This record gives sequence, structure tokens and C-alpha cells, in this order.
Amino acid sequence: MKIVNLDHMSANPLLPEVKDVMIEAIKMDYGNPSSQHKIGEQAAEVLENARESVANLINSAVPKEIVFTSGGTESVNHAVKGAAFANADKGKHIVTSNIEHNAVIRSLRRLKTMGYTITSISVDKNGRVNPDDVAKAITDETILVSIMHSNNETGTIQPIQEIGQITKNKKIIFHVDAVDSVGVVPIDVQKLGVDLLSFASNTFYGPTGVGGLYVRRGTPVWPLLDGGVQENNKRAGAENLTGIIAMGVAAKLARRDMASRIAHTKKLKEKLLKDLPAYIDEYIINTHPEYSLPTLVSVSIKYIEGESIVLMLDDEDITVSTRSACATGSLRASHVLLSIGLGHADAQGTLVITFGVDNTEEDVDRFLTVLKTVVTTLRDISPLYQSKS
Amino acid sequence: MKIVNLDHMSANPLLPEVKDVMIEAIKMDYGNPSSQHKIGEQAAEVLENARESVANLINSAVPKEIVFTSGGTESVNHAVKGAAFANADKGKHIVTSNIEHNAVIRSLRRLKTMGYTITSISVDKNGRVNPDDVAKAITDETILVSIMHSNNETGTIQPIQEIGQITKNKKIIFHVDAVDSVGVVPIDVQKLGVDLLSFASNTFYGPTGVGGLYVRRGTPVWPLLDGGVQENNKRAGAENLTGIIAMGVAAKLARRDMASRIAHTKKLKEKLLKDLPAYIDEYIINTHPEYSLPTLVSVSIKYIEGESIVLMLDDEDITVSTRSACATGSLRASHVLLSIGLGHADAQGTLVITFGVDNTEEDVDRFLTVLKTVVTTLRDISPLYQSKS
Repeated sequence: MKIVNLDHMSANPLLPEVKDVMIEAIKMDYGNPSSQHKIGEQAAEVLENARESVANLINSAVPKEIVFTSGGTESVNHAVKGAAFANADKGKHIVTSNIEHNAVIRSLRRLKTMGYTITSISVDKNGRVNPDDVAKAITDETILVSIMHSNNETGTIQPIQEIGQITKNKKIIFHVDAVDSVGVVPIDVQKLGVDLLSFASNTFYGPTGVGGLYVRRGTPVWPLLDGGVQENNKRAGAENLTGIIAMGVAAKLARRDMASRIAHTKKLKEKLLKDLPAYIDEYIINTHPEYSLPTLVSVSIKYIEGESIVLMLDDEDITVSTRSACATGSLRASHVLLSIGLGHADAQGTLVITFGVDNTEEDVDRFLTVLKTVVTTLRDISPLYQSKS
Repeated sequence: MKIVNLDHMSANPLLPEVKDVMIEAIKMDYGNPSSQHKIGEQAAEVLENARESVANLINSAVPKEIVFTSGGTESVNHAVKGAAFANADKGKHIVTSNIEHNAVIRSLRRLKTMGYTITSISVDKNGRVNPDDVAKAITDETILVSIMHSNNETGTIQPIQEIGQITKNKKIIFHVDAVDSVGVVPIDVQKLGVDLLSFASNTFYGPTGVGGLYVRRGTPVWPLLDGGVQENNKRAGAENLTGIIAMGVAAKLARRDMASRIAHTKKLKEKLLKDLPAYIDEYIINTHPEYSLPTLVSVSIKYIEGESIVLMLDDEDITVSTRSACATGSLRASHVLLSIGLGHADAQGTLVITFGVDNTEEDVDRFLTVLKTVVTTLRDISPLYQSKS
């Protein structure tokens, strides 16, 4: 039976066009873009073409503002630590939210051990940051504000443009972790008023192991990787050229097809939300009704555990996630779900369903049918469920 | 005409077997090794297989000691900065040599601005570090010694095992930048007594954009990339699985074929050194006669400029390097060549010739024939050459 992939956030499949271009690049076996001979020149040319496609996807003013990295996590570490180190003489205070991805949280925790102080703003029960809270948290010592664009567990989108207005007025560097947004929803770095923006190729059906960091011209940020002069002196090391070429093509396709992809996934998301009550009861939808990714539904199913649901669905060839795949290995309740007011028990029963271009309405039907059986089975053996009445 | 590639250090071609396995991996389109469903499990399995192959190449005791990175530069930054940050409470002094790659030099320069002190040991005229100098440079504040295995410009190999004995006795972390050695010459981390060892996949005909860091069990090092729990909590971020799979296969082949590759390239190197006097005069060989990579010849050709030679050879479809490709963009004389006693003028005329498995004796003949013409042409218009008599 065909696998129903409802876990696109963990791993998006490569688009056929992206596969083709990667295979072609491997056959071509480009040289080192930094070499001075013509093999190097040819490699440098394809590298710069990819940079332009990626710059266009987020409406960066000049391609040089794009730094290619090894993925979203490197981009975030580069942005957060790079801005903190480069501006330590001005202050050591950083403002963030309490629903960030582990890449941001743990980078900041690292900085805390090095003498930085962090103010972590709470979100409202819908999972959104209030821009006024950001303004209030800023002190004379603040050098960086880091707020994510969309949340990887709930899909909720933050008021980035409003926050960007505040940081611009106060002349503070604004980093946005947009790893789950770029290529999925329109992102315009000029309109948003951000200084640093992290993103990853796999989010828009490019390969893993490659990502990007937007660095607005003139933003003082240290490289994370020191060494050679690659990437306009912002990121040393021989480039993952095959990955970058593929990311460029994926970016072009994402820009071209964004409207139709949004329409397609949104339709599936709405069908799931509409049909769900006919299959199961006693659940909580954690996804914002208005400001959220078109691809993501987060649902907490009461009295049972997410891990068990994932494994039983997997037996039926349906993949979903119970929290960010990046966080697997941690068994604690999600900080994101607790922060929007969920209890520990409800948080444990949370599924993250992420749609992609390859999903169909039949996928939703099959998922719901199997989910109903799984939930019934698990609740039958759940002490919580048995004791609730 | 076939391109004669004598610049393998800038970019090694992918082996046909490596290309095949990459293309296969792209077609398979593995999932995320951190996912909890079976797509994730399959991906985790190929990831761990690759880790074992890489561990075997350097005789690491357990595969878990291998951390996959985005390349040699990331490995070096991870090792140097990670060890410095993790041990700052014990001291802030680091010992290194004055011929390191820019990844080490610039990582240390970065640490210097953060309050660390660096002692940089001079090499002898053959480009080698004296282990006694390392012992003398170590103070009560020393937390790290970082010495490269082989130099990327001269090919000279350092007495790593002797230095490893010193650092072991003094209980100081020893990092070895072996980016140009692993997969080329035998490396045994247990015999060498190193704690951290950086390497890159492309050095042994794997793809760029992927590398490794050996971390001896128990060595205190901070991650460079904080976030998810990938790579046994040592390096966050979704893996470049296609690159890692390819690196695993390249590592297996490097181990299997190392002796024959060494014999092959050494024969070409010896032919070049033997035949060179019949083609040009007034040059200096910068490569150590005994302790050096079998693949590399560094030659300084007097009175003319390396850049001009590279470009004229390129016109004849022959690629060589005039300094580390990573350093292109900098026009200063090489710090490595100055450190072994070359004058600025001689350093400027230096070619780095690096052989690979695909080179033949005819390649050497063709290179020498064309080089003779190029050198004659350039010397004819060289004021230095004209005024020398």
C-alpha cells in the first residue's frame, strides 16, 4: 500500500525536477567555485545563479545578502550567536519568545552561560506574541530580538512586520527563524523589516543539508564558520554545490507555484478540520484559525499518548509527527504546547499533521478512518480514559 | 582536449562508485533519521552504516566518536571553538603552529578577541614543528593544542604522534586538522593519541559539503550548532544524508585502495621531481623529502607570478593551484611559505600541484612541456628576471 505521508515537516520529498537537477549536477561534478581556473569559474557561475533564485524567493535587495549554510539550524546558530558576539560591546541582552525552536532556545541558553541575559516573552493562548510585549522587553542593553515566523508545532504565524517596525525604530537587530515558512508562504524581507532571516531548503522540497541565512547589508554579525573567504567572507568552507544548485531550483519552483500549493494544502487542511468531529471526539485544535501555515494542523487527542498513535499509524503506513522531529529523544512535554496553556496530559497526545503537494483528499479520508480505530484502541486501554467518568 | 587536473586539492572528482551511490540515494529520497516512524528508521540505519565506515577509516574505537559535519571547515571551527568555550574555566591559553590552515588561524583569531591567548610555534625550514617546542609552550593555563597533520600548501606531515604523547601526559586536549590527510595516508586516531580530529569527504573523492569530526569519548567540547539532538547531541540539524551516505562509501573505498593510491600518486610525484630540471631552472621545492603527502608537490618558480602561471596553464587545459583555493581573494604572500623561509618574491611564484587517482604519466609530461613554454614566456616579460644578471 502507498505510504500516506502526513509528516512533511520532518522530511519533504524532493520534487522530481529537483531530483533531476541534483543527478545532473553529480554527473557534471562541478569544481571548486574558489579556484582560479576555468573549472572554478564554471562552478562559481552556477553558485551565483542559485543565490539569485533564493534571493528572489524572499525579495532580498541583492543576492549577496544570501549566505548559503548547511541548513536551518546552522543559519539560526550563525544569526543568533553571530549577532550576540559581534555586538557584545553594545550590550548583552536578547529578547525572544517562549515558543522558539530548539535551535534558537539552545543557542540562547549557550549564550546565557557566556554572560548574556535573555528575556523570553510569553505568547497568548493562541500562540501569538504581542508586539507591545517586545517593545516593553527592550532595554538599553538589548542588541538582538529573535522571534520565529511560524511555529513548527502549531503552525501559528507571528506578527513579524509589527515587531520589525519596533526593532527598526529602536535600531536593534531583528532575527527571524523562518525555517518553516520560507517557500511555504510569501516572505518579503524588505516588507517585514528583518535584518537576519533563517531558512532551509527542504521546507520547499529541496534537499536537506543546505539552507540559507539572509543578512541585510551592513548588519554586524560574526561568521559561525571562520576560515576561507567563501560566501563573501560570511561563511567559510567549500560549498555543498550539488545541494545549493538543487536549492536554487527548488526556490524557483516554490516562487512560481506558491499560490497553487497554498490553495492545495489549505483545502486538505480545511477538509481535515471539518471532517475530524465525525471520527473522533474530545480533542483540542492548537492551530490558529487565521494566522497559521496552510500546511499544518496540530491536534491534541485527550487521554492517549502521541507516541503510541504515531507508531500505530505507522503500522498502517501513515506517517505523522508527535512533535518536531528535531526534538525526538526528549520525552518532556512540548514547551510550545505548555506555553499556549495545554496541560501536560493533553500535550502528550498531540499530533502534528503536515500536508504537502503530493497529498490528496483520499489521504485525509484514509488517515481519519485509521485514526478512529487507533484512538478507540488506545482509549480502551487508557487508565486516564477509563477513570474520566 | 582532455583537461589535465593537477589541482585535486581544490576539488577531487567524485569516484564513479560514489556518483552511483549518490544518485541512488537521491532516487530513494530517504526520510529524516530522527523521525519515529519506519521511514525515519530506514534513514537512521543508512546513517549509522556510513558512520561505521568512516570510523573504520581512522580506527576510531566506537562509531559514536564520529560527528558528521558540513565539511572540514565546520569540523575545525567546532573542535577549536568548542574546546575553547567548554574549557574556559580551566584556562584560556591555546598552542598552535604558524602554518595552520585559515580555518584554524581565523578561529583562533576570533577567540583572541574574546580573551583567549594564542602561542603560535614556528616551524623549521622544512616546515616541521618540533615537539619540544610544543612542550615548552604549554603553561598551566593551556587548554588546547591544535596542530595540523599535513600542510595544504607544502604537503609536509607533522610529528603528530610525538605531540600526542606530550598532550596526553599533560592532560591537554589535542586537536589535529587532518583535512588534507584522512583518506590519503593512514590515520589511526588511537595510535596518534589525538582527542579531536577534523577531516573532509572530498579529500577522499567524496562530495563537498560533508565532513567529520572525531571526538574521543569524554572530551569536553561544546557543539558549534545547538538545537536538536542529532549526532548524539554533538551537532544539531537535519543531516545531509545523501552526502553522508556518499562519504561512507568513499571512506570504504579509501581504506581498501589506500596502498595502491599512494603507490600511484607517489610514482607521479617522483617523476615530476625527477624530470623537472630538464624543463625549467631556478626553482625551489617546498615539499619535505621524507615527511609529506604522496599527492603534493609545491614548487616556487623564481622571477614570475603564480597567478599568471595558473591562468596560462588554464588556457592549455591544465589546472594547478597557486595557493590553497580556500584563500583565493587574498593577494598576500602565503604565511606558510614565508614561515619556511621563502622571500616574498619567491613565495609569489609558487605552484601547488596535487595528483589524484585519475592522473597518468602522460599528464606529467604534458604539464612539464606546457610549463616550460609558460615559464619562458613569463620570464621574457619579467622585470625581475631581466634585471637579475
